Amino acid sequence: MSAADPINDFETFYYNQTLDHFNFRPDSFNTFQQRYLINFKHWGGSNVSAPIFAYLGEEEAIDVDLSIVGFLSENAHQFQALQIFIEHRYYGKSVPFGSREEAFQNADTLGYFNSAQALADYAEVLIHVKKKLHAQHSPVIVIGASYGGMLASWFRLKYPHVALGALASSAPILYFDNIVPPEDGYYSIVTKDFREASETCYQTIKKSWSDIDAIASQPEGLSFLSEKFHTCRPLKKSSELKNYLDNLYCNAAQYNSPPSYPVTVVCGAIDGASGNDTLTKIFAGVVAFSGNTSCYVNQPRNLTETDMGWSWQTCSDMVIPMASVSNDSMFPAYQFDLKDYIKSCKAQYGVPPRPHWVTTYFGGHDIKLALERFASNIIFSNGLRDPYSSGGVLEDISDTIVAVHAKNGSHCLDILNADNITDPDWLVNQRKIEVKIIKRWIARYYADLQAFKK
Amino acid sequence: MSAADPINDFETFYYNQTLDHFNFRPDSFNTFQQRYLINFKHWGGSNVSAPIFAYLGEEEAIDVDLSIVGFLSENAHQFQALQIFIEHRYYGKSVPFGSREEAFQNADTLGYFNSAQALADYAEVLIHVKKKLHAQHSPVIVIGASYGGMLASWFRLKYPHVALGALASSAPILYFDNIVPPEDGYYSIVTKDFREASETCYQTIKKSWSDIDAIASQPEGLSFLSEKFHTCRPLKKSSELKNYLDNLYCNAAQYNSPPSYPVTVVCGAIDGASGNDTLTKIFAGVVAFSGNTSCYVNQPRNLTETDMGWSWQTCSDMVIPMASVSNDSMFPAYQFDLKDYIKSCKAQYGVPPRPHWVTTYFGGHDIKLALERFASNIIFSNGLRDPYSSGGVLEDISDTIVAVHAKNGSHCLDILNADNITDPDWLVNQRKIEVKIIKRWIARYYADLQAFKK
Repeated sequence: MSAADPINDFETFYYNQTLDHFNFRPDSFNTFQQRYLINFKHWGGSNVSAPIFAYLGEEEAIDVDLSIVGFLSENAHQFQALQIFIEHRYYGKSVPFGSREEAFQNADTLGYFNSAQALADYAEVLIHVKKKLHAQHSPVIVIGASYGGMLASWFRLKYPHVALGALASSAPILYFDNIVPPEDGYYSIVTKDFREASETCYQTIKKSWSDIDAIASQPEGLSFLSEKFHTCRPLKKSSELKNYLDNLYCNAAQYNSPPSYPVTVVCGAIDGASGNDTLTKIFAGVVAFSGNTSCYVNQPRNLTETDMGWSWQTCSDMVIPMASVSNDSMFPAYQFDLKDYIKSCKAQYGVPPRPHWVTTYFGGHDIKLALERFASNIIFSNGLRDPYSSGGVLEDISDTIVAVHAKNGSHCLDILNADNITDPDWLVNQRKIEVKIIKRWIARYYADLQAFKK
Repeated sequence: MSAADPINDFETFYYNQTLDHFNFRPDSFNTFQQRYLINFKHWGGSNVSAPIFAYLGEEEAIDVDLSIVGFLSENAHQFQALQIFIEHRYYGKSVPFGSREEAFQNADTLGYFNSAQALADYAEVLIHVKKKLHAQHSPVIVIGASYGGMLASWFRLKYPHVALGALASSAPILYFDNIVPPEDGYYSIVTKDFREASETCYQTIKKSWSDIDAIASQPEGLSFLSEKFHTCRPLKKSSELKNYLDNLYCNAAQYNSPPSYPVTVVCGAIDGASGNDTLTKIFAGVVAFSGNTSCYVNQPRNLTETDMGWSWQTCSDMVIPMASVSNDSMFPAYQFDLKDYIKSCKAQYGVPPRPHWVTTYFGGHDIKLALERFASNIIFSNGLRDPYSSGGVLEDISDTIVAVHAKNGSHCLDILNADNITDPDWLVNQRKIEVKIIKRWIARYYADLQAFKK
């Protein structure tokens, strides 16, 4: 299977991190323990300024990344690279205020939880590690996935003195402030994915919502639907079922990866179900996706730390407008209403989000014009079947800020664990291209370094 | 005299500014009125995407800049540029918490007062103004002096999507975290300036400190010195006199500008005083610098807002290590002791400074290596007689991040009001070079814009 190093090749460290980098109130000086892990195994050492691969954690405990992100360990040997995985503040074991309960109490304690602070954390940890290892001239390549990919590209933009380059996998940095029109966003790609897999499947799904509504509006309609879909608890509203299905299609599209290709699996079942009943077909798709379990929909589930954390993040700086408005959409019409959005965030947390802050701080509008002659060494990699690719950078910005995409790729696929047996050529090739670009950055850097040292 | 537009060509505006851009605590959402002034007179308008010259205020009320900074108004006509002057938070009329008294109460209210927040302020104001004027494709050139010059260069680095380029005049961005060894800093240039003006003058000053100490240690020594220097109040300690002289020499060197050249004036008087008495000579220098007034040293003086504001800033992020240690120095030996420094800031404000934060956030170490292939369009201009030039960027970093300096220049001279009669050729020429470079940036940008719009 994967060439990844075993997790126990990693040593765990904690950095005494500043709570608020951008403020000097007494409270800002509070600290918390930020977790990071290092694998020294392949590192060429500071004498040769061997590279450092730094994975910038996103909205989950870093352990998860360690087990599924293969790009670093699969390439560490040929680069003689040190590998470091750094956990994002407020996730995993890197939670301020002593406990998750305290940290998530309200906006007073959550206020410090945002992307600009996270980037400053990464800068401090990396500067600290380089100093400890006497490796101040080792080039750092930051790598991130999805939100973490945004962080990686932004890190290169804001901290070029800390990281030489960034591999930003499936990073929808243009999915803010209507840079990409919401109607061309996430749901339009999910629809395209299903339609390309099967026109009849797409039509069935498109029709199913009104069928569900029609039945739900009948007396006993909800219990009929509950039975039909083997729900774990009786449905109270049809939206429970619809949200579940919405989610299922989105997941299938986002992670539509080889060798299984979930969209094909779902559509195969929908198209293959006997009879003409739409809901029977849809349920066949559900079973095909989720496997045979005792029940579907309304599974009892605890809120994960990702649920909790990301919910806050989308109500502070990460305001990503989702909509489904075109007639072609296989989803019910859904318009993004910023005012409603702000209202609901305020109701939940007591403070409003700042929907324009990301573009103020990081830019995004007219990105080619802004960055064509500014910055360097960023790879924006995308799989075009990934719904988030709609907010990604899909064209080269300059010679050294480049877009690498795979037509059939899914979310973050290029940096997830490789599979030597089942990975298709286009995926192997995409990874090779990325490695080649990074090698070029590092070679050029070493030449600069040699000239600099003279 | 100056070609500057009259101040009443400027209209005053206020922007409802967010107190803390990097935090989402309820307190962070408080706002204050930030002042900015616009001169529309020469602007070519949004139809032609005519440029915007933005002066980024530093540690004083923006009115002061408006009256002494000529670069914008002297060049607005030929660029058809809009001129905007933006006041720095906590100065002038841009003070949060309702009043200066409230704002400066303690670290709880001062915590929001730092360079990263100021840059975010400027970004918000500029984005707001461009939007209001429908001028989102107008290239913005930010201009700043001294600390404001640091802000201008950092603004281009952090907000390239807001500003196309920066003219950073006398910006000692390398004067942090021992990038420049403190002993090669400010005092070494003051010494050099005086020594180049006159070797005997330099020797006299160098000798004077021990003479003062020797006299001060005698009974009645302090009253002798008080009389000798016509002090406004009797000296309580010899350090009062020594600090005054230290300051005077530093001011003379920092603002050693044509046509008067204060260092030459001071040294002329020191060398020209009759007799051999060192202190008589020194006093002649004092009179020559300060003019005939009723008294010198210990002038009653109120704390200015710059004194108050900058004192906080140097105890938060702006930790600039000053030292005088070489045997050649004309100043008494003074070693910068970071531990003592931190202690005294803590005693004054209750919180310690963060001496490594500037280099963490903005970089500076090995700046050529970090930026040679990153960023663009920054002019670092310096006068080499300016003691702050010791912390400036004096060599080109790349084709578009360039150093422009004048051997005989003083602090910020290139962007202060021009004088058509007395300005020497080298100064006129320095300004011309800067204008030419900015024209090149803008021409290239317009070409990019045209291609981008297709």
